[in-house]
Amino acid sequence: MSKIDRRVAELGITLPKPWTVSIPANISASLVRVRGKSVFVSGHVPIDADGSPAGPFGRVGAEVTPEQGQQAARLALLGILASLKAKLGDLDRIAAWLRVYGMIWPAPGFVGFPSVMNGASALIHDVFGPEIGDHARVAIGVGATPFNAPLEIEAQLELV
Amino acid sequence: MSKIDRRVAELGITLPKPWTVSIPANISASLVRVRGKSVFVSGHVPIDADGSPAGPFGRVGAEVTPEQGQQAARLALLGILASLKAKLGDLDRIAAWLRVYGMIWPAPGFVGFPSVMNGASALIHDVFGPEIGDHARVAIGVGATPFNAPLEIEAQLELV
Amino acid sequence: MSKIDRRVAELGITLPKPWTVSIPANISASLVRVRGKSVFVSGHVPIDADGSPAGPFGRVGAEVTPEQGQQAARLALLGILASLKAKLGDLDRIAAWLRVYGMIWPAPGFVGFPSVMNGASALIHDVFGPEIGDHARVAIGVGATPFNAPLEIEAQLELV
Repeated sequence: MSKIDRRVAELGITLPKPWTVSIPANISASLVRVRGKSVFVSGHVPIDADGSPAGPFGRVGAEVTPEQGQQAARLALLGILASLKAKLGDLDRIAAWLRVYGMIWPAPGFVGFPSVMNGASALIHDVFGPEIGDHARVAIGVGATPFNAPLEIEAQLELV
Repeated sequence: MSKIDRRVAELGITLPKPWTVSIPANISASLVRVRGKSVFVSGHVPIDADGSPAGPFGRVGAEVTPEQGQQAARLALLGILASLKAKLGDLDRIAAWLRVYGMIWPAPGFVGFPSVMNGASALIHDVFGPEIGDHARVAIGVGATPFNAPLEIEAQLELV
Repeated sequence: MSKIDRRVAELGITLPKPWTVSIPANISASLVRVRGKSVFVSGHVPIDADGSPAGPFGRVGAEVTPEQGQQAARLALLGILASLKAKLGDLDRIAAWLRVYGMIWPAPGFVGFPSVMNGASALIHDVFGPEIGDHARVAIGVGATPFNAPLEIEAQLELV
């Protein structure tokens, strides 16, 4: 059992099935792009255990509470981990998180984006620790998201 | 004739003139930044044959239909190809697409961003094929765009 | 005295104190992530001399004028320079700016984002010159920002 898999199990976390998003055959986008040691992760909405977009849906600060928003950030990051595991085979291949870009769909007047994104950053910290998990971050309010998800997260990492 | 130029011709595509955006002399931003093998492409709006921003202008889902939005994504990507060719000289120097970040200006309620961005991702696939063209992607709704363009696309690539 | 410190002094610029943002101990996000030669800078709002978010606050084109927006972009970039100096020790270690991503909070109808971001790009040009300072750029309107800041800037650089 790999070190990160063991850590995930210790934390009582079960990764969801990888996101079942349908990518048309005539386009060359993918959920995870690996090139040499560089890993680019496409925008992920919160993902349920079965690999589908997870509710609640809507704007943080209205249909979705800030606490639910923080949980949504955690579920989006879990979806990213599932996509990374599907692509890399072994999460121990991750040498460094580099950049995490959080796009939150806000109700008018809601600006607590950093707090919402802490749901993702805390999970990175818990699973990978402060050195591998260290990352630059953006937490910004967007105009709208696919699937009416409360947020979407993009990331960049480096392999061993 | 380079391989990619030949492929572009086979597809019946004529690249536009490079974007004629005026960059003030006292700033150090440029349309394409190359450093070693890394290529960073500035945000591009849809570009017309003459190198100016292409209409229709406005929000996707209102002034601009979703189908026109998809075409706009294609025209923004064509503008990126023109900027890359102007900077690199030869598009065969591109070893890999890495990341494509699509910012769509939506009418209230429109969330079909991935479908809009397929206009860009399909063109990358057609011109570069599935291996060089493979890319992580974001398709998100923004608050507003320069020039009231329906969308803007940023990208990162790697050279041979 | 390092070359860039001397240049900053020549320009009559005093860097602010580094941003005093409070990062919870249980998350692994930081203002600047360095990995090998790669530097990723988290989203920075405009920063005052004392290291706190600088006013005026609100939307560019309404509570904040376009001219104040340009000044806000300069103050966000000064905050980034302060964070870089705190992390790197010496700004002469910067070999290249690569990417600058500007997120502007706009009033309805305001789209002069490139002009606003010139406040940051001109400062990069003045301090680092056209070769080190060259950067790909995005200037886009977002839905909302943390702290009701008029804008936020993210960046990527490379070390010597």
